[in-house]
Amino acid sequence: MEFKAILKMLVQQCNGALGGVIMGYDGIAIDEYLTDTAGLDVQTLAIEYASVLKEIKRTVGVLRTGELEEVSIISQQCSVIVRGVSDDFFVALVLTADGNFGKGRYLLKREAPKLREALQ
Amino acid sequence: MEFKAILKMLVQQCNGALGGVIMGYDGIAIDEYLTDTAGLDVQTLAIEYASVLKEIKRTVGVLRTGELEEVSIISQQCSVIVRGVSDDFFVALVLTADGNFGKGRYLLKREAPKLREALQ
Repeated sequence: MEFKAILKMLVQQCNGALGGVIMGYDGIAIDEYLTDTAGLDVQTLAIEYASVLKEIKRTVGVLRTGELEEVSIISQQCSVIVRGVSDDFFVALVLTADGNFGKGRYLLKREAPKLREALQ
Repeated sequence: MEFKAILKMLVQQCNGALGGVIMGYDGIAIDEYLTDTAGLDVQTLAIEYASVLKEIKRTVGVLRTGELEEVSIISQQCSVIVRGVSDDFFVALVLTADGNFGKGRYLLKREAPKLREALQ
């Protein structure tokens, strides 16, 4: 399956999802899928978070608590769930504040290996 | 209730919790409660994360998606759930990889207003 097809499925199966993006820690996106209702600029959001994620990855490395698996950042208006796909790439799902956070986490966990395969 | 009493309750009521700390975004802790089994240095971990959290807070500010409410960082060996308490302070709960993540989130959300009050 192509990246966009996986991202589309992630977004469509999760209530309140605004968009999904697969991106490098350098802030360069491979692909994205956005709903029409995504008022937010999901790509800008992902780029802004990419540098933060790089820093989190570094910190997790320093602390030696194993590889970084997931990061979620919840603000008043939206939630962002990020899952590491490879050493260089992550997938991010952006949800409305009342989106299904638990399902989003579950779907990302389930689909990450497929994205990893698609990267190879 | 004192900070330590709230932190103790948080840790004791959440399966797999290793410790809790209330800390400034400058990395200076107000108080902490650690279990005897916490092999990790919870305070070092919180200090390392404090600078990352400051950066996340800044990013959320730039993106104008409302106030930062919660951040969670999951690595292979442990999960850290962080909740903003005030503009300057956050509370962090550190769990084992198989700890009750959902209950940790719930307890932090429930107790954050009490910590906010105790700060005043």
